[in-house]
Amino acid sequence: MAVSPSTHPRRLLPLFLGLFQGALLLFFALFVTYDEASAQAEDTNLVANRVHSTFPFFQDIQVMLVVGLGLLLTFLPRYGFSALTHNFLLLNFSMQWALVLQGLLHHFHHGQIHLDLHKLLISEFAAVTVLISAGAVLGRASPCQLLVMATCEIPAYLASEWAIVAGLRVLDVGGTITIHVFSCYFGLGVSKALFRATQQPLHPKETPAPRSDLMSLVGTLILWVFWPSFVAVLCQPGDAQHRAILNTLLALSASAITTVLAPGLLERDGKLSPGHLQNGSLAGGVAIGVVADMAVPPVAALALGSLSAAVCVLGFRFLTPLLRRKLTLHDQCGIHNLHGLPGILGAAASVVAVLVASKDTSDRGAGGQALCQAAGLAVAVGASLLAGLLTGAALRLPCLARPPERLCFDDSLYFKIQDQAESPEPDSSAEEGALALKE
Amino acid sequence: MAVSPSTHPRRLLPLFLGLFQGALLLFFALFVTYDEASAQAEDTNLVANRVHSTFPFFQDIQVMLVVGLGLLLTFLPRYGFSALTHNFLLLNFSMQWALVLQGLLHHFHHGQIHLDLHKLLISEFAAVTVLISAGAVLGRASPCQLLVMATCEIPAYLASEWAIVAGLRVLDVGGTITIHVFSCYFGLGVSKALFRATQQPLHPKETPAPRSDLMSLVGTLILWVFWPSFVAVLCQPGDAQHRAILNTLLALSASAITTVLAPGLLERDGKLSPGHLQNGSLAGGVAIGVVADMAVPPVAALALGSLSAAVCVLGFRFLTPLLRRKLTLHDQCGIHNLHGLPGILGAAASVVAVLVASKDTSDRGAGGQALCQAAGLAVAVGASLLAGLLTGAALRLPCLARPPERLCFDDSLYFKIQDQAESPEPDSSAEEGALALKE
Amino acid sequence: MAVSPSTHPRRLLPLFLGLFQGALLLFFALFVTYDEASAQAEDTNLVANRVHSTFPFFQDIQVMLVVGLGLLLTFLPRYGFSALTHNFLLLNFSMQWALVLQGLLHHFHHGQIHLDLHKLLISEFAAVTVLISAGAVLGRASPCQLLVMATCEIPAYLASEWAIVAGLRVLDVGGTITIHVFSCYFGLGVSKALFRATQQPLHPKETPAPRSDLMSLVGTLILWVFWPSFVAVLCQPGDAQHRAILNTLLALSASAITTVLAPGLLERDGKLSPGHLQNGSLAGGVAIGVVADMAVPPVAALALGSLSAAVCVLGFRFLTPLLRRKLTLHDQCGIHNLHGLPGILGAAASVVAVLVASKDTSDRGAGGQALCQAAGLAVAVGASLLAGLLTGAALRLPCLARPPERLCFDDSLYFKIQDQAESPEPDSSAEEGALALKE
Repeated sequence: MAVSPSTHPRRLLPLFLGLFQGALLLFFALFVTYDEASAQAEDTNLVANRVHSTFPFFQDIQVMLVVGLGLLLTFLPRYGFSALTHNFLLLNFSMQWALVLQGLLHHFHHGQIHLDLHKLLISEFAAVTVLISAGAVLGRASPCQLLVMATCEIPAYLASEWAIVAGLRVLDVGGTITIHVFSCYFGLGVSKALFRATQQPLHPKETPAPRSDLMSLVGTLILWVFWPSFVAVLCQPGDAQHRAILNTLLALSASAITTVLAPGLLERDGKLSPGHLQNGSLAGGVAIGVVADMAVPPVAALALGSLSAAVCVLGFRFLTPLLRRKLTLHDQCGIHNLHGLPGILGAAASVVAVLVASKDTSDRGAGGQALCQAAGLAVAVGASLLAGLLTGAALRLPCLARPPERLCFDDSLYFKIQDQAESPEPDSSAEEGALALKE
Repeated sequence: MAVSPSTHPRRLLPLFLGLFQGALLLFFALFVTYDEASAQAEDTNLVANRVHSTFPFFQDIQVMLVVGLGLLLTFLPRYGFSALTHNFLLLNFSMQWALVLQGLLHHFHHGQIHLDLHKLLISEFAAVTVLISAGAVLGRASPCQLLVMATCEIPAYLASEWAIVAGLRVLDVGGTITIHVFSCYFGLGVSKALFRATQQPLHPKETPAPRSDLMSLVGTLILWVFWPSFVAVLCQPGDAQHRAILNTLLALSASAITTVLAPGLLERDGKLSPGHLQNGSLAGGVAIGVVADMAVPPVAALALGSLSAAVCVLGFRFLTPLLRRKLTLHDQCGIHNLHGLPGILGAAASVVAVLVASKDTSDRGAGGQALCQAAGLAVAVGASLLAGLLTGAALRLPCLARPPERLCFDDSLYFKIQDQAESPEPDSSAEEGALALKE
Repeated sequence: MAVSPSTHPRRLLPLFLGLFQGALLLFFALFVTYDEASAQAEDTNLVANRVHSTFPFFQDIQVMLVVGLGLLLTFLPRYGFSALTHNFLLLNFSMQWALVLQGLLHHFHHGQIHLDLHKLLISEFAAVTVLISAGAVLGRASPCQLLVMATCEIPAYLASEWAIVAGLRVLDVGGTITIHVFSCYFGLGVSKALFRATQQPLHPKETPAPRSDLMSLVGTLILWVFWPSFVAVLCQPGDAQHRAILNTLLALSASAITTVLAPGLLERDGKLSPGHLQNGSLAGGVAIGVVADMAVPPVAALALGSLSAAVCVLGFRFLTPLLRRKLTLHDQCGIHNLHGLPGILGAAASVVAVLVASKDTSDRGAGGQALCQAAGLAVAVGASLLAGLLTGAALRLPCLARPPERLCFDDSLYFKIQDQAESPEPDSSAEEGALALKE
């Protein structure tokens, strides 16, 4: 046990996944079928139009989550494989799990669930929360822990989302409150309960290397490019969707510029930290989601983008070290700076936007709607923190095999790879030597 | 000649490509023109609609083939340039060559071939077979050999595809039988005939490095994301296309999870091999192609995805070493595990799907159609093996300059690059030293 | 000042960007609003259709500029961060600045500018010129210099583009003359005026490493895949757009093959230079832009693609060294070979295409239009050279903090990264040693 501290979970992971896949197959066999609208010609056209107008957005979002977010997480030089793979695994697992739960809760008619692209998309949105939360514990949690976290987070998200959107009728087309704020505080709760008060010293493998940071920046750029699709996919086609795309583009553009100018004001040497750039340029996309399709003027999108990037960079600079020191709170990827603070900012902006909006779209008046937006934020923060703390406590179960500190941030715990320490990598003289010997 | 064993082919490659480009220009000048449907307003709308509904799929497929597949092939640390470039060259060459042949065979009316996006797409599908087959001999074949292989494979593919689709009226919208199975056995035939019985020892440059494996995994993820476009692009718009997209998404998702859980059952240390992940997560996409647009229930897509991933991983674990040892068969990328086995599984699934389907769409009855599906598989395997063996024998011609064993898997044979052996490159002993000190 | 030669500009950059963002916010607050076409149902459909037909193209172009071009510029092993980030910053800054200027010049009605996706797209096209020009001074110009360059280039481009398209009514749907030729000679002018006659010795960090070259090649492939979207996005939907897509695909395909065959004719060892491949395969895309939607036969697209790739490779092989030696002209990325020469070739082709075209679409006859195409080329070259030289002279202002020669091509000047020299990382102590020796 001392030598191979993770023998046991090696059996737990396939057991867990195997049982889940089996149950999923059973569930699909019994209840899930395809939605066959047509037979009539006009319906076929309708379906074709719907597919052609949704599918490009869907693919953009898939690229964001699988490739963009995956690469963004590879900033640790020895943890690239695990980051990419765990992200990929969590996306698939959470999406399937969300499909089941949402099917049972919302789409169960006459003993059948009719699957379509829109339902898959909604499940993918639920899965996003898990991917974000996992950023808080990146490198220090085992795949089993992550899967259990996903198992708990998806129902918590669905409950919170239902309370916020159906209950409070909060307007949040881009998921700023329901997805970003929720997943951030859930992740922080998990991290707090899992690691408790142990002040971890900086792990030697925890420092990004230039090359892995560059890969991560490419991930950021991919996310940056496709973010408008994420925000606009669920909008009403037409003006609302058009406006959501434009608002998101403006906010992201302002974020990019603000992030680059920030270190000149904050740092003595004026140099830009890769981590700030990787996160700050996306902050506008997080914040704008909740107001993207509202009748806000373009200047508001620009201002919100700038402000959220500033808040994100300031968070990295001042708040994260503070939280680490005072609350012994670990936030490996800085999700509080990218998803938490900009999310709260966006929610505040939505309160203002609703109050200022000239025309009253809801039956409860602008004031009522503004109150609801604020209440939605409170629900998201409260529910996610509570659920996160409980989940984090559950993840302490020894059978879930948290990796020993020595093996954190290390691919070789999960992957059969050449030990990177021993063979200097790609192109090693040792290998050359072997070749020379043979010849 | 002893010093630079490849002086001659350096002249052959430009000669071959130059002659081909010249002939292509002549052919295009004489026979190829654009399809100008319009002049009337309604036709313009029709063309615009067709372009807008096909082009995004087309672009997705281009990304898959040029970027995704290209990156997937870069798993050898010193062969990244060659892998990307040969893949890119083969795609372009094969697509042009297929355009000529298909034009002559199918689209020659009144001395003219009317080019359109759909014909380019069909030619691209033909080119895919070459890209897959090339995986069997990656790193051990010269560009000249690959081009000659492409020259032979495209007509063989067109004949086989014609026999299967037009002759046997096999249903295979995603090309599982016509493309994946065909190209796999063609590639294995080439490899067998080219390398004969020589048992090659493991080449020191044949081992993936962590960094090149990571690039390759990114390629897999890109393929994974865009695979539904590949399967669904040729489907009837509407329900059939919608179903094909959903089936492919489900199969790929199940493959991803099965691939991750497999090593926990197969390996003593439970660690995941990068190669298994790179291939297994795509196996579902290969298998689902043939039944994607049929009226199969969603559970079948999930089951097929899981099963094909399992078969793929088992193939890598047990079958590839066996074939290597018993048949001295080299399969560098393991195309038999990714394209062969899942393709056969998909074909078998299509037999069952046709038999089970309640409504009889074909005039020959379910039994007849099922027989045809099986016959199509047999034709694909037989024709491709035969053509591949013949082609492989032709590739032994000395003038095609197979690279000497010492220079296999090495970019420096084809590219002017700094010798990677001399400049240590990526990850550094200093960093390692720092790490060692801390521990 | 001797120790930290760039303290001052560290303050200038945030000042410049901060003032610009402030002015932009004011401008947007006063003048910019969204274009709300609808209220009526049919208008909503119209807007939805326009968004669904433009947005996928728009996203493709964003991927090209942010990810594709960004990666293409990372061929210098120690300058990857700066290349990606400066490209990203310039894109955002130039796009916003072009939005302001174009709004004032063209879209100012009743004190309002109505923003829509099409106007953003047009601004993005303007920004492309800056990204291309920056390639001439990559690694030797500070971010402040690049921003001042963008500030000058955008109005020069708008004036030149207005003269060429509105004045001379030049046909140039893909921006071959207005964007590629203009930005090339602008960049060369800047480089000439900025570096004057100083013959720079080869900087030790100026040599690409295999790994960075591979990343750059991936960037090329991304650009190659999405190039048709760039050329076709502004075409008339229907046949013209369809033709533009096909012509671009054919030209790019011919370029790829010609680039691969070229070294066999040019080089004694027949080996391919990564730089040639990275640029040559895209040359066809540059040249085809101006004739893409004209009624040229497919063979012309193939021929133009081949020819422009040949010209590009020959340019790298013979012209760039000549210009460097005779004119002491630095062209870091070889933009003259990728954008200048193929652009001129394309313009010449458009003269021929207009003369040959059977039907006279313009009121001034084929001869008149052909003259105008030639005049457009002359205007683009002349205006850009003049504006570039003036801008380059302005960039010599000491306050713009050109990086000292020793710190050129080095990320550590702008980024807080682990010193790559200490941890050998990308490339090795050997290179460092060489640098130390020279100094």
